[in-house]
Amino acid sequence: MEIPLDDTQMILDNIFVFVCAVLVFFMQAGFAMLTAGLTRAKSVANIVMKNLMDMSVGVLVFAVVGYHIAYSGADFFGFSWLWGGYADAPTADYSLMLPVDFFFQAAFAAAAATIVAGALAERTQFRGYLLYTVFITGLIYPVVVNWQWGGGWLAQLGTPFEDFAGSTVVHSVGGWAALMGAIIIGPRIGKYGADGRPRALPGHSMPLAILGVFVLFIGWFGFNPGSQLAADIEVPRIAVNTALAAAAGAVLAMITSWIVSKKPDVSMAGNGLLGGLVAITAGAFSLDGYGSVVAGAIGGVIVVFSVLGLERAGVDDPVGAVSVHGVCGAWGTIAVGLLANGNAPFLEEGVSGLLYGGGVDLLVTQLIGTVAVFVFVCVAAGLLFSAIKAAGWLRVSPEEELAGLDIGEHGAPGYSFDMGTATGLVVDTPATATEKV
Amino acid sequence: MEIPLDDTQMILDNIFVFVCAVLVFFMQAGFAMLTAGLTRAKSVANIVMKNLMDMSVGVLVFAVVGYHIAYSGADFFGFSWLWGGYADAPTADYSLMLPVDFFFQAAFAAAAATIVAGALAERTQFRGYLLYTVFITGLIYPVVVNWQWGGGWLAQLGTPFEDFAGSTVVHSVGGWAALMGAIIIGPRIGKYGADGRPRALPGHSMPLAILGVFVLFIGWFGFNPGSQLAADIEVPRIAVNTALAAAAGAVLAMITSWIVSKKPDVSMAGNGLLGGLVAITAGAFSLDGYGSVVAGAIGGVIVVFSVLGLERAGVDDPVGAVSVHGVCGAWGTIAVGLLANGNAPFLEEGVSGLLYGGGVDLLVTQLIGTVAVFVFVCVAAGLLFSAIKAAGWLRVSPEEELAGLDIGEHGAPGYSFDMGTATGLVVDTPATATEKV
Amino acid sequence: MEIPLDDTQMILDNIFVFVCAVLVFFMQAGFAMLTAGLTRAKSVANIVMKNLMDMSVGVLVFAVVGYHIAYSGADFFGFSWLWGGYADAPTADYSLMLPVDFFFQAAFAAAAATIVAGALAERTQFRGYLLYTVFITGLIYPVVVNWQWGGGWLAQLGTPFEDFAGSTVVHSVGGWAALMGAIIIGPRIGKYGADGRPRALPGHSMPLAILGVFVLFIGWFGFNPGSQLAADIEVPRIAVNTALAAAAGAVLAMITSWIVSKKPDVSMAGNGLLGGLVAITAGAFSLDGYGSVVAGAIGGVIVVFSVLGLERAGVDDPVGAVSVHGVCGAWGTIAVGLLANGNAPFLEEGVSGLLYGGGVDLLVTQLIGTVAVFVFVCVAAGLLFSAIKAAGWLRVSPEEELAGLDIGEHGAPGYSFDMGTATGLVVDTPATATEKV
Repeated sequence: MEIPLDDTQMILDNIFVFVCAVLVFFMQAGFAMLTAGLTRAKSVANIVMKNLMDMSVGVLVFAVVGYHIAYSGADFFGFSWLWGGYADAPTADYSLMLPVDFFFQAAFAAAAATIVAGALAERTQFRGYLLYTVFITGLIYPVVVNWQWGGGWLAQLGTPFEDFAGSTVVHSVGGWAALMGAIIIGPRIGKYGADGRPRALPGHSMPLAILGVFVLFIGWFGFNPGSQLAADIEVPRIAVNTALAAAAGAVLAMITSWIVSKKPDVSMAGNGLLGGLVAITAGAFSLDGYGSVVAGAIGGVIVVFSVLGLERAGVDDPVGAVSVHGVCGAWGTIAVGLLANGNAPFLEEGVSGLLYGGGVDLLVTQLIGTVAVFVFVCVAAGLLFSAIKAAGWLRVSPEEELAGLDIGEHGAPGYSFDMGTATGLVVDTPATATEKV
Repeated sequence: MEIPLDDTQMILDNIFVFVCAVLVFFMQAGFAMLTAGLTRAKSVANIVMKNLMDMSVGVLVFAVVGYHIAYSGADFFGFSWLWGGYADAPTADYSLMLPVDFFFQAAFAAAAATIVAGALAERTQFRGYLLYTVFITGLIYPVVVNWQWGGGWLAQLGTPFEDFAGSTVVHSVGGWAALMGAIIIGPRIGKYGADGRPRALPGHSMPLAILGVFVLFIGWFGFNPGSQLAADIEVPRIAVNTALAAAAGAVLAMITSWIVSKKPDVSMAGNGLLGGLVAITAGAFSLDGYGSVVAGAIGGVIVVFSVLGLERAGVDDPVGAVSVHGVCGAWGTIAVGLLANGNAPFLEEGVSGLLYGGGVDLLVTQLIGTVAVFVFVCVAAGLLFSAIKAAGWLRVSPEEELAGLDIGEHGAPGYSFDMGTATGLVVDTPATATEKV
Repeated sequence: MEIPLDDTQMILDNIFVFVCAVLVFFMQAGFAMLTAGLTRAKSVANIVMKNLMDMSVGVLVFAVVGYHIAYSGADFFGFSWLWGGYADAPTADYSLMLPVDFFFQAAFAAAAATIVAGALAERTQFRGYLLYTVFITGLIYPVVVNWQWGGGWLAQLGTPFEDFAGSTVVHSVGGWAALMGAIIIGPRIGKYGADGRPRALPGHSMPLAILGVFVLFIGWFGFNPGSQLAADIEVPRIAVNTALAAAAGAVLAMITSWIVSKKPDVSMAGNGLLGGLVAITAGAFSLDGYGSVVAGAIGGVIVVFSVLGLERAGVDDPVGAVSVHGVCGAWGTIAVGLLANGNAPFLEEGVSGLLYGGGVDLLVTQLIGTVAVFVFVCVAAGLLFSAIKAAGWLRVSPEEELAGLDIGEHGAPGYSFDMGTATGLVVDTPATATEKV
């Protein structure tokens, strides 16, 4: 369709998606604070550096390669499209122009990449991590996007795969890559005692971790409502579903941890809120308010048991990324097959989930998509991390791991407290903080 | 009135209020950082957990009960309205649809609840706090909202009560509840010396506190302009009034603390900015630029003397929540009766305050509303906290208070610094950080 | 032109610029966290207090004086214009109303002022800093704005000076003022060894610093796209250019620091991202995607060498403000003369840079503007800081500097860690934390 450049609704759509994309980019700050807060102080600079590079490397690689694999198929390499700037977006059955579509999608790619940072925390070589970032934003994530949002086979199934904002396409891609990375690199030194039982290595700052949770919560209101890709009357309803699921996830995770570990655990509550958000990402449009609460609440419960289960199984995921993004991503996708409410006035297509009398068709499709992405990402990420390991670029030396990665990988400590004194000269120069010139 | 769903202005109104609601939800992060920064490190995880739950529990309780008490009156319980999603908002003399109205109002309810967290910091049982949160978001706050924005008796006075964005309806509700809570639970151990004089228990992180101030400042541009509930030409003027009052509050609080305590106090300046914001919240629409600066400046001065006065009076409010939200909320509401500029071209209703030749009618109304809410909240919150105290759920044991609430209430420390070493294994496992499985 | 107040596009423009202004105000939080993180813990409260006052004092002074110097010329003092609120903006060849124009411009003024805070960190008297803030937001910055955006001589050159969002008008003003301030106040005690060679005084918190970088990145999407001053179809393209330049700046700075200092430096990567943003600020509209990557990448390289060069030259700029905002601001302005793509469909005016076959005209204009602002700001800021120094208001005593400015200037420590204990009373009262009443 041809849309005049002064069409008010078209401009409104573009401005709305622009604002939502900014909120999604803000999630990088949330991931950085969450991951930093839930890990130890001695590797904190390395953590935030990885988030910074996921965004920076991710945007460039996605512009040059990833976006084209995801949407234009043929048109590989070079972002010549950035010249014109006025063409409709590749998948334009809506009024978005190409620049804003790329801007929004690039923010998603950066998010998918940075999910893995936490699972590999405190023991990964920086150069190896950079290599991973290039491949997930340039190849692995774009292929999955092409399957669904690029109009690929998942979108062409008899009953089309329903993943509104990416419980599977975005979050589970990051989550399953995190799972493979954590397995292949192995647990941190000291995570498991001589008896093989896991020990708690508490994160160094709950304020930073919960700040990260709040920032991610805010960013999700760009992630889900923005995925409507239009400024229309459905946007607020999608936002309400998102808020209800997040709230239910936090409350249920708190209650579950209270029962399981006798105290309401703060990091579990925070991860529960995120689990609720991931769980509603696929169904933010097709679920009603009741379904959103149910999807989020179950997501919150899943997070607690998944985190404890993976820990017992010997998978050391310092921040719970696999549970939050992988397991809850899968749950949220399947939840659409159970809870989609096609009877509600807002659902034109009228596809319902099993519990709303829609039969098993949608549920089957959701299972197919969930499993297909799981298999593809596990294989692709498995090969990637194995190759990085074979190259000797995956794990740092035990000495460096024990000392912390900040000095070993980046040459300066992440923290350096010199509180001064009223009595004279204080010189607080860490061994490594020598002149760099 | 019936508004077609493709009406551009209606869509613009809904998208605008959606964006403003996201900014208001962002205030939760601001409250969390401010409160954490102004309290001690040993209870910091408990602080941020309370903010997280104010938002999560608050959204659910407000959806199921509070919103209906506030607006629909009769229609108690169940959010069946979330099904349709297209009906006009309960108080619709504007083009907002119900979902965005709930989304915006729920963010306000969470804000009202979390104001109290700081005043009860470092000594409150977590289970008791949760109980408080349920009642303020489900009953106390909604009743006050119903009086005014729900079209209740305050809105029906001869000269209607003017509280544009909630100096009284939101902030003083939280502030007076905080006052009652702080009185009933009593001061922290060590706050008052043997001579009964107050001792400073400095907050543990000014960077976090001022980050919180900046985030709250940003969120207020959703709080005040969004309360116009329409994307119209008044929005920027409301934003300018808000910025001028905030700036004046910060500067005057700095100057006042400089005079009173011989140095420009950082936390006073931060609270002064917030006091200025609370003071302009009622009059953000009806005051002009001059009035906004005056309202904010006086708010900044009030904060300093109120904080010191309450401290002397034996009320231990670790973060100054009562002064900022309660006292400045009352001032801001009364300021409308003095400074409303009905002569300015932007005020259709043309109601003026005393100093603008409007006589005492508006001032009397503002005093009635301010006092009525003060009395209702003090009684309701007084009963609530007394009941929680009677149940033995209000205050932690002296041992736990001295040790910090993080370990006692949540089983893990809020901070755990292990800066590593270049010389070998570091095992930093707090007594409590044993395996949780 | 007269625009009806219910014109949808006009309202959309005003709402869009309002949202962008909020993002620009959010940059204050970014500057605060970045500057705090890159300096030492003993002066951290002083750092965030300066950012808080740059915003607060800046908004008030800009409202009363600065805005009028920048735009209205004659009409000095008093913001009577805030009464009406409906008049077109002073430079209205667009549909913005005056309140939103002021709101947006005031956020810029605050940003220009706060750039200097970092360069003067850890050794400047607070009262002297306040004096500086008043003059830069009230006089120095407004004069430069008047030259260009106020329709002054730079805008009237044969080939008009092109500085879309302020690489020169905003960032270099702050950067060159920072340069003069850092030179006149001199380096921190301990920055240079007996041999005169610089020593690293590492910042105390990389998580806060990189949080600041992310927040500034987000704010820039208000800074650049908002400078279009209209909600139109160019906005997303401007955002994409901004993101590409930021990403390229971060990656190139990381690579450069990796080569120069053998490790990928975290603070350099963060400053590189900011350098890329400053470098694209002038050309965010006139450059295409390729040009944006090139401008940002070179900005990232420049930051590393400029930071190391200034350090060697004896200029102690603790956070790299001069390099990021001054040097990259100049580069970004000149880059427009080289890389402006007048052939692209989006550029009506069709002015091209040297490398796009546009000849030297634009390049010459860009050099004139860059040098003129450099000379004016160096002279004006030089006189200002010299006067403050002569008054004995510039530098704190060596004793206070060594002890940290938090206690000396503000009477309380910025950090105070009391992690409690399970074994009894902990009293952690810094010498200074006595009762303030």
